[in-house]
Amino acid sequence: MVLHGYFRSSASYRVRIALNLKGVQVRHQTHHLRRGEQRSAGYLGINPQGLVPALVLDDGRTITQSLAIIEWLEETVPVPALLPADPFARAQVRAFADVIACDTHPLQNLKVLNEVRTISGSEDVVQAWARRVNEEGLDWCEQALNRTRTRFAFGDVPTLADICLVPQMGNARRFKADVARWPRLLEVEANCMALDAFAQAAPDKQPDAEPA
Amino acid sequence: MVLHGYFRSSASYRVRIALNLKGVQVRHQTHHLRRGEQRSAGYLGINPQGLVPALVLDDGRTITQSLAIIEWLEETVPVPALLPADPFARAQVRAFADVIACDTHPLQNLKVLNEVRTISGSEDVVQAWARRVNEEGLDWCEQALNRTRTRFAFGDVPTLADICLVPQMGNARRFKADVARWPRLLEVEANCMALDAFAQAAPDKQPDAEPA
Repeated sequence: MVLHGYFRSSASYRVRIALNLKGVQVRHQTHHLRRGEQRSAGYLGINPQGLVPALVLDDGRTITQSLAIIEWLEETVPVPALLPADPFARAQVRAFADVIACDTHPLQNLKVLNEVRTISGSEDVVQAWARRVNEEGLDWCEQALNRTRTRFAFGDVPTLADICLVPQMGNARRFKADVARWPRLLEVEANCMALDAFAQAAPDKQPDAEPA
Repeated sequence: MVLHGYFRSSASYRVRIALNLKGVQVRHQTHHLRRGEQRSAGYLGINPQGLVPALVLDDGRTITQSLAIIEWLEETVPVPALLPADPFARAQVRAFADVIACDTHPLQNLKVLNEVRTISGSEDVVQAWARRVNEEGLDWCEQALNRTRTRFAFGDVPTLADICLVPQMGNARRFKADVARWPRLLEVEANCMALDAFAQAAPDKQPDAEPA
Protein backbone atom coordinates (compact mmCIF):
# COMPACT_ATOMS: atom_id res chain seq x y z
CA MET A 1 0.00 0.00 0.00
CA VAL A 2 1.05 3.61 -0.52
CA LEU A 3 0.27 6.38 1.95
CA HIS A 4 0.20 9.78 0.29
CA GLY A 5 1.02 12.33 2.96
CA TYR A 6 3.11 15.23 4.12
CA PHE A 7 5.35 15.30 7.15
CA ARG A 8 3.59 18.23 8.78
CA SER A 9 0.01 17.25 7.92
CA SER A 10 -1.57 16.20 11.18
CA ALA A 11 -4.19 14.11 9.38
CA SER A 12 -1.32 12.18 7.73
CA TYR A 13 0.38 11.92 11.12
CA ARG A 14 -2.74 10.26 12.56
CA VAL A 15 -2.65 7.59 9.84
CA ARG A 16 1.08 7.04 10.30
CA ILE A 17 0.50 6.35 14.01
CA ALA A 18 -2.39 3.98 13.30
CA LEU A 19 -0.37 2.04 10.71
CA ASN A 20 2.54 1.76 13.14
CA LEU A 21 0.30 0.59 16.00
CA LYS A 22 -1.17 -2.07 13.70
CA GLY A 23 2.28 -3.05 12.44
CA VAL A 24 1.28 -2.41 8.83
CA GLN A 25 4.10 -1.41 6.48
CA VAL A 26 3.37 0.98 3.63
CA ARG A 27 5.34 3.00 1.13
CA HIS A 28 5.22 6.71 1.87
CA GLN A 29 4.83 9.24 -0.90
CA THR A 30 4.97 12.88 0.10
CA HIS A 31 3.34 15.94 -1.43
CA HIS A 32 4.62 19.32 -0.33
CA LEU A 33 1.49 21.18 0.75
CA ARG A 34 3.09 24.61 0.95
CA ARG A 35 4.27 24.23 -2.65
CA GLY A 36 0.78 23.08 -3.70
CA GLU A 37 1.93 19.65 -4.85
CA GLN A 38 -1.34 18.16 -3.61
CA ARG A 39 -3.07 20.02 -6.44
CA SER A 40 -0.90 18.50 -9.18
CA ALA A 41 -2.82 16.66 -11.92
CA GLY A 42 -1.14 13.43 -10.87
CA TYR A 43 -2.28 13.67 -7.26
CA LEU A 44 -5.77 14.90 -8.15
CA GLY A 45 -6.13 11.64 -10.08
CA ILE A 46 -5.62 9.85 -6.76
CA ASN A 47 -7.62 12.22 -4.53
CA PRO A 48 -9.74 14.74 -6.45
CA GLN A 49 -10.17 16.66 -3.19
CA GLY A 50 -6.47 17.52 -3.33
CA LEU A 51 -5.92 16.70 0.32
CA VAL A 52 -3.62 14.32 2.14
CA PRO A 53 -3.68 11.65 3.39
CA ALA A 54 -4.86 9.11 0.83
CA LEU A 55 -4.16 5.42 1.15
CA VAL A 56 -3.83 3.50 -2.10
CA LEU A 57 -4.47 -0.20 -1.58
CA ASP A 58 -2.53 -2.92 -3.36
CA ASP A 59 -5.43 -3.40 -5.79
CA GLY A 60 -5.27 0.30 -6.74
CA ARG A 61 -8.38 1.44 -4.89
CA THR A 62 -8.02 4.59 -2.79
CA ILE A 63 -9.33 5.56 0.62
CA THR A 64 -9.28 9.22 1.63
CA GLN A 65 -9.97 11.03 4.91
CA SER A 66 -7.81 10.10 7.88
CA LEU A 67 -10.63 8.86 10.12
CA ALA A 68 -12.14 6.75 7.34
CA ILE A 69 -8.71 5.23 6.68
CA ILE A 70 -8.23 4.44 10.37
CA GLU A 71 -11.71 2.90 10.73
CA TRP A 72 -10.99 0.79 7.63
CA LEU A 73 -7.70 -0.30 9.15
CA GLU A 74 -9.48 -1.18 12.39
CA GLU A 75 -11.96 -3.35 10.49
CA THR A 76 -9.40 -5.12 8.30
CA VAL A 77 -6.57 -5.47 10.84
CA PRO A 78 -8.48 -5.76 14.13
CA VAL A 79 -5.48 -6.42 16.41
CA PRO A 80 -4.33 -4.43 18.31
CA ALA A 81 -7.68 -2.69 18.60
CA LEU A 82 -7.75 1.10 18.31
CA LEU A 83 -11.30 1.27 19.64
CA PRO A 84 -12.64 -0.34 22.83
CA ALA A 85 -15.10 -3.23 22.51
CA ASP A 86 -18.05 -1.65 24.33
CA PRO A 87 -20.29 0.57 22.14
CA PHE A 88 -20.55 3.37 24.71
CA ALA A 89 -16.78 3.38 25.24
CA ARG A 90 -16.29 3.44 21.47
CA ALA A 91 -18.60 6.44 21.27
CA GLN A 92 -16.57 8.26 23.91
CA VAL A 93 -13.36 7.65 21.99
CA ARG A 94 -14.92 8.68 18.68
CA ALA A 95 -16.48 11.82 20.19
CA PHE A 96 -13.10 12.86 21.60
CA ALA A 97 -11.48 12.22 18.21
CA ASP A 98 -14.21 14.26 16.51
CA VAL A 99 -13.67 17.24 18.81
CA ILE A 100 -10.22 17.35 17.26
CA ALA A 101 -10.99 16.14 13.74
CA CYS A 102 -14.20 18.16 13.20
CA ASP A 103 -14.14 21.08 15.63
CA THR A 104 -10.45 21.93 15.90
CA HIS A 105 -8.10 20.80 13.16
CA PRO A 106 -10.18 21.92 10.13
CA LEU A 107 -10.36 25.47 11.50
CA GLN A 108 -6.59 25.88 11.59
CA ASN A 109 -5.41 24.11 8.48
CA LEU A 110 -3.31 25.83 5.85
CA LYS A 111 -6.24 26.61 3.57
CA VAL A 112 -8.37 28.29 6.22
CA LEU A 113 -5.45 30.27 7.58
CA ASN A 114 -4.76 31.52 4.05
CA GLU A 115 -8.39 32.70 3.85
CA VAL A 116 -8.09 34.45 7.20
CA ARG A 117 -4.87 36.07 5.96
CA THR A 118 -6.63 37.36 2.84
CA ILE A 119 -9.57 38.76 4.79
CA SER A 120 -7.58 40.33 7.59
CA GLY A 121 -4.36 41.26 5.81
CA SER A 122 -2.70 40.64 9.18
CA GLU A 123 -0.32 37.88 10.19
CA ASP A 124 -1.11 38.67 13.83
CA VAL A 125 -4.79 37.93 13.22
CA VAL A 126 -3.88 34.66 11.49
CA GLN A 127 -1.66 33.53 14.34
CA ALA A 128 -4.21 34.55 16.97
CA TRP A 129 -6.94 32.64 15.10
CA ALA A 130 -4.83 29.47 14.93
CA ARG A 131 -3.80 29.72 18.57
CA ARG A 132 -7.38 30.32 19.74
CA VAL A 133 -8.77 27.39 17.74
CA ASN A 134 -6.16 25.06 19.23
CA GLU A 135 -6.71 26.36 22.76
CA GLU A 136 -10.49 26.04 22.59
CA GLY A 137 -10.36 22.53 21.13
CA LEU A 138 -7.74 21.22 23.51
CA ASP A 139 -9.39 22.90 26.51
CA TRP A 140 -12.38 20.65 25.81
CA CYS A 141 -10.10 17.64 25.50
CA GLU A 142 -8.43 18.44 28.82
CA GLN A 143 -11.83 18.77 30.46
CA ALA A 144 -12.89 15.41 29.01
CA LEU A 145 -9.89 13.64 30.55
CA ASN A 146 -9.01 15.59 33.65
CA ARG A 147 -10.84 13.31 36.04
CA THR A 148 -9.21 10.13 34.78
CA ARG A 149 -5.73 8.82 35.52
CA THR A 150 -5.35 6.20 32.81
CA ARG A 151 -2.10 5.81 30.91
CA PHE A 152 -3.69 6.83 27.63
CA ALA A 153 -6.72 8.99 26.88
CA PHE A 154 -9.24 6.19 27.42
CA GLY A 155 -7.62 3.33 29.23
CA ASP A 156 -4.33 1.51 29.24
CA VAL A 157 -3.94 1.04 25.51
CA PRO A 158 -3.80 3.75 22.87
CA THR A 159 -6.96 4.42 20.89
CA LEU A 160 -8.17 6.64 18.09
CA ALA A 161 -8.42 9.39 20.73
CA ASP A 162 -4.65 9.36 21.35
CA ILE A 163 -4.04 9.11 17.60
CA CYS A 164 -5.89 12.39 17.10
CA LEU A 165 -4.60 14.07 20.25
CA VAL A 166 -0.86 13.75 19.71
CA PRO A 167 -0.70 15.45 16.29
CA GLN A 168 -2.99 18.23 17.51
CA MET A 169 -0.68 18.90 20.46
CA GLY A 170 2.07 19.38 17.90
CA ASN A 171 -0.08 21.93 16.07
CA ALA A 172 -0.86 23.69 19.33
CA ARG A 173 2.85 24.15 20.02
CA ARG A 174 3.52 25.29 16.47
CA PHE A 175 0.88 28.00 16.92
CA LYS A 176 2.36 28.95 20.30
CA ALA A 177 -0.64 27.86 22.33
CA ASP A 178 -0.17 27.74 26.08
CA VAL A 179 0.26 23.97 26.42
CA ALA A 180 0.95 24.17 30.17
CA ARG A 181 -2.79 24.66 30.72
CA TRP A 182 -3.32 20.98 29.78
CA PRO A 183 -1.46 18.92 32.39
CA ARG A 184 -3.51 15.80 31.72
CA LEU A 185 -3.08 16.05 27.94
CA LEU A 186 0.68 16.53 28.40
CA GLU A 187 0.80 13.39 30.54
CA VAL A 188 -1.12 11.35 27.96
CA GLU A 189 1.02 12.76 25.16
CA ALA A 190 4.22 11.80 26.99
CA ASN A 191 2.94 8.26 27.51
CA CYS A 192 2.12 8.03 23.81
CA MET A 193 5.48 9.40 22.69
CA ALA A 194 7.21 6.74 24.79
CA LEU A 195 5.86 4.23 22.27
CA ASP A 196 7.78 3.71 19.03
CA ALA A 197 4.52 3.71 17.04
CA PHE A 198 3.96 7.35 17.98
CA ALA A 199 7.58 8.49 18.11
CA GLN A 200 8.43 7.14 14.66
CA ALA A 201 5.33 8.78 13.15
CA ALA A 202 6.32 12.26 14.32
CA PRO A 203 6.78 14.92 11.62
CA ASP A 204 10.48 15.43 12.35
CA LYS A 205 11.14 11.70 11.80
CA GLN A 206 9.77 11.71 8.25
CA PRO A 207 12.06 11.69 5.20
CA ASP A 208 10.44 14.90 3.90
CA ALA A 209 10.86 16.76 7.20
CA GLU A 210 12.20 20.31 7.08
CA PRO A 211 13.62 22.47 9.85
CA ALA A 212 10.89 24.11 11.97
CA MET B 1 -33.42 8.78 25.51
CA VAL B 2 -33.26 12.54 25.10
CA LEU B 3 -31.74 14.22 22.05
CA HIS B 4 -30.54 17.72 22.84
CA GLY B 5 -30.60 19.68 19.59
CA TYR B 6 -31.74 22.70 17.67
CA PHE B 7 -33.98 22.74 14.64
CA ARG B 8 -31.44 24.47 12.40
CA SER B 9 -28.31 22.63 13.62
CA SER B 10 -27.29 20.37 10.78
CA ALA B 11 -25.38 18.07 13.14
CA SER B 12 -28.65 17.62 15.11
CA TYR B 13 -30.49 17.09 11.82
CA ARG B 14 -28.10 14.22 10.97
CA VAL B 15 -28.91 12.48 14.23
CA ARG B 16 -32.66 13.03 13.78
CA ILE B 17 -32.48 11.32 10.38
CA ALA B 18 -30.45 8.40 11.76
CA LEU B 19 -32.87 7.88 14.67
CA ASN B 20 -35.83 7.95 12.27
CA LEU B 21 -34.17 5.48 9.88
CA LYS B 22 -33.53 3.14 12.82
CA GLY B 23 -37.06 3.64 14.13
CA VAL B 24 -35.75 4.80 17.52
CA GLN B 25 -38.02 7.17 19.43
CA VAL B 26 -36.46 9.84 21.64
CA ARG B 27 -37.60 12.92 23.49
CA HIS B 28 -36.32 16.11 21.85
CA GLN B 29 -35.04 18.99 23.94
CA THR B 30 -34.09 22.12 22.06
CA HIS B 31 -31.51 24.78 22.86
CA HIS B 32 -31.72 28.02 20.92
CA LEU B 33 -28.20 28.48 19.53
CA ARG B 34 -28.62 32.07 18.43
CA ARG B 35 -29.73 32.98 21.95
CA GLY B 36 -26.73 31.09 23.39
CA GLU B 37 -28.86 28.59 25.34
CA GLN B 38 -26.27 25.89 24.60
CA ARG B 39 -23.94 27.75 26.98
CA SER B 40 -26.36 27.70 29.92
CA ALA B 41 -25.04 26.09 33.09
CA GLY B 42 -27.68 23.37 32.79
CA TYR B 43 -26.64 22.37 29.30
CA LEU B 44 -22.92 22.62 30.01
CA GLY B 45 -23.54 19.99 32.68
CA ILE B 46 -24.71 17.68 29.89
CA ASN B 47 -22.17 18.67 27.24
CA PRO B 48 -19.29 20.80 28.55
CA GLN B 49 -18.39 21.62 24.94
CA GLY B 50 -21.63 23.60 24.72
CA LEU B 51 -22.56 22.12 21.35
CA VAL B 52 -25.56 20.25 20.07
CA PRO B 53 -26.39 17.46 19.52
CA ALA B 54 -25.97 15.40 22.67
CA LEU B 55 -27.81 12.15 23.23
CA VAL B 56 -28.61 11.30 26.85
CA LEU B 57 -29.19 7.58 27.26
CA ASP B 58 -31.83 6.14 29.60
CA ASP B 59 -29.13 5.39 32.18
CA GLY B 60 -28.06 9.05 32.18
CA ARG B 61 -24.83 8.64 30.24
CA THR B 62 -24.26 11.13 27.43
CA ILE B 63 -22.86 10.76 23.93
CA THR B 64 -21.79 13.90 22.06
CA GLN B 65 -20.71 14.55 18.47
CA SER B 66 -23.16 13.63 15.72
CA LEU B 67 -20.96 11.05 13.98
CA ALA B 68 -20.09 9.32 17.25
CA ILE B 69 -23.80 9.18 18.13
CA ILE B 70 -24.66 7.70 14.73
CA GLU B 71 -21.85 5.10 14.90
CA TRP B 72 -23.09 4.15 18.40
CA LEU B 73 -26.61 3.82 17.06
CA GLU B 74 -25.32 1.66 14.19
CA GLU B 75 -23.57 -0.64 16.68
CA THR B 76 -26.48 -0.91 19.13
CA VAL B 77 -29.38 -0.98 16.64
CA PRO B 78 -27.79 -2.66 13.60
CA VAL B 79 -30.93 -2.89 11.41
CA PRO B 80 -31.46 -1.16 9.06
CA ALA B 81 -27.74 -0.69 8.48
CA LEU B 82 -26.48 2.84 7.85
CA LEU B 83 -23.10 1.55 6.64
CA PRO B 84 -22.48 -1.15 4.01
CA ALA B 85 -21.05 -4.49 5.12
CA ASP B 86 -17.82 -4.41 3.08
CA PRO B 87 -14.91 -2.54 4.75
CA PHE B 88 -13.89 -0.67 1.59
CA ALA B 89 -17.48 0.37 0.91
CA ARG B 90 -17.77 1.51 4.55
CA ALA B 91 -14.62 3.58 4.09
CA GLN B 92 -16.08 5.25 1.00
CA VAL B 93 -19.23 6.17 2.89
CA ARG B 94 -17.30 7.43 5.90
CA ALA B 95 -14.90 9.45 3.73
CA PHE B 96 -17.83 11.12 1.98
CA ALA B 97 -19.43 11.87 5.36
CA ASP B 98 -16.12 13.30 6.61
CA VAL B 99 -15.80 15.64 3.61
CA ILE B 100 -18.98 17.21 4.96
CA ALA B 101 -18.48 16.72 8.70
CA CYS B 102 -14.78 17.69 8.85
CA ASP B 103 -14.02 19.80 5.78
CA THR B 104 -17.26 21.67 5.15
CA HIS B 105 -19.73 22.04 7.99
CA PRO B 106 -17.28 23.16 10.74
CA LEU B 107 -16.06 26.03 8.55
CA GLN B 108 -19.50 27.56 8.20
CA ASN B 109 -21.06 27.08 11.60
CA LEU B 110 -22.39 29.96 13.64
CA LYS B 111 -19.26 30.31 15.78
CA VAL B 112 -16.81 30.53 12.88
CA LEU B 113 -19.02 32.93 10.96
CA ASN B 114 -19.14 35.16 14.05
CA GLU B 115 -15.32 35.14 14.11
CA VAL B 116 -15.18 36.03 10.41
CA ARG B 117 -17.68 38.82 11.08
CA THR B 118 -15.48 40.21 13.87
CA ILE B 119 -12.33 40.09 11.75
CA SER B 120 -13.81 41.49 8.58
CA GLY B 121 -16.52 43.77 9.93
CA SER B 122 -18.41 42.93 6.76
CA GLU B 123 -21.58 40.89 6.37
CA ASP B 124 -20.74 40.47 2.69
CA VAL B 125 -17.45 38.79 3.60
CA VAL B 126 -19.26 36.48 6.04
CA GLN B 127 -21.86 35.45 3.48
CA ALA B 128 -19.22 34.94 0.77
CA TRP B 129 -17.17 32.78 3.17
CA ALA B 130 -20.15 30.58 4.03
CA ARG B 131 -21.20 30.25 0.39
CA ARG B 132 -17.67 29.38 -0.75
CA VAL B 133 -17.20 26.74 1.96
CA ASN B 134 -20.47 25.06 0.98
CA GLU B 135 -19.68 25.22 -2.72
CA GLU B 136 -16.20 23.78 -2.32
CA GLY B 137 -17.37 20.96 -0.06
CA LEU B 138 -20.36 20.00 -2.14
CA ASP B 139 -18.38 20.28 -5.40
CA TRP B 140 -16.22 17.45 -4.03
CA CYS B 141 -19.33 15.48 -3.09
CA GLU B 142 -20.80 15.93 -6.57
CA GLN B 143 -17.54 14.76 -8.09
CA ALA B 144 -17.53 11.69 -5.84
CA LEU B 145 -21.00 10.64 -7.00
CA ASN B 146 -21.35 11.94 -10.53
CA ARG B 147 -20.43 8.67 -12.20
CA THR B 148 -22.94 6.60 -10.26
CA ARG B 149 -26.68 6.31 -10.80
CA THR B 150 -27.75 4.70 -7.56
CA ARG B 151 -30.89 5.85 -5.76
CA PHE B 152 -28.91 7.08 -2.74
CA ALA B 153 -25.31 8.29 -2.45
CA PHE B 154 -23.84 4.80 -2.17
CA GLY B 155 -26.35 2.23 -3.31
CA ASP B 156 -30.04 1.61 -3.00
CA VAL B 157 -30.42 2.22 0.71
CA PRO B 158 -29.59 5.39 2.62
CA THR B 159 -26.29 5.49 4.50
CA LEU B 160 -24.31 7.83 6.70
CA ALA B 161 -23.33 9.63 3.48
CA ASP B 162 -26.93 10.64 2.74
CA ILE B 163 -27.44 11.51 6.40
CA CYS B 164 -24.62 14.06 6.16
CA LEU B 165 -25.45 15.24 2.64
CA VAL B 166 -29.08 16.26 3.09
CA PRO B 167 -28.56 18.72 5.99
CA GLN B 168 -25.56 20.24 4.20
CA MET B 169 -27.65 20.85 1.08
CA GLY B 170 -30.00 22.79 3.36
CA ASN B 171 -27.08 24.89 4.58
CA ALA B 172 -25.92 25.46 1.02
CA ARG B 173 -29.33 26.89 0.09
CA ARG B 174 -29.45 29.01 3.22
CA PHE B 175 -26.11 30.55 2.24
CA LYS B 176 -27.35 31.06 -1.34
CA ALA B 177 -24.93 28.61 -2.91
CA ASP B 178 -25.59 27.74 -6.53
CA VAL B 179 -27.18 24.32 -5.94
CA ALA B 180 -27.93 23.80 -9.65
CA ARG B 181 -24.27 22.94 -10.17
CA TRP B 182 -24.87 19.64 -8.33
CA PRO B 183 -27.41 17.68 -10.43
CA ARG B 184 -26.40 14.35 -8.92
CA LEU B 185 -26.59 15.63 -5.35
CA LEU B 186 -30.01 17.16 -6.05
CA GLU B 187 -31.21 13.80 -7.36
CA VAL B 188 -29.93 11.95 -4.28
CA GLU B 189 -31.39 14.61 -2.00
CA ALA B 190 -34.83 14.30 -3.67
CA ASN B 191 -34.74 10.51 -3.26
CA CYS B 192 -33.88 10.96 0.42
CA MET B 193 -36.58 13.54 1.04
CA ALA B 194 -39.14 11.15 -0.42
CA LEU B 195 -38.56 9.03 2.70
CA ASP B 196 -40.42 9.96 5.88
CA ALA B 197 -37.24 9.41 7.93
CA PHE B 198 -35.59 12.34 6.16
CA ALA B 199 -38.66 14.51 5.60
CA GLN B 200 -39.77 14.38 9.24
CA ALA B 201 -36.25 15.27 10.43
CA ALA B 202 -36.12 18.49 8.41
CA PRO B 203 -35.62 21.73 10.33
CA ASP B 204 -38.99 23.18 9.35
CA LYS B 205 -40.77 20.12 10.77
CA GLN B 206 -39.33 20.55 14.26
CA PRO B 207 -41.39 22.01 17.12
CA ASP B 208 -38.78 24.76 17.67
CA ALA B 209 -38.73 25.79 13.98
CA GLU B 210 -38.86 29.49 13.22
CA PRO B 211 -39.64 31.26 9.94
CA ALA B 212 -36.66 31.37 7.58
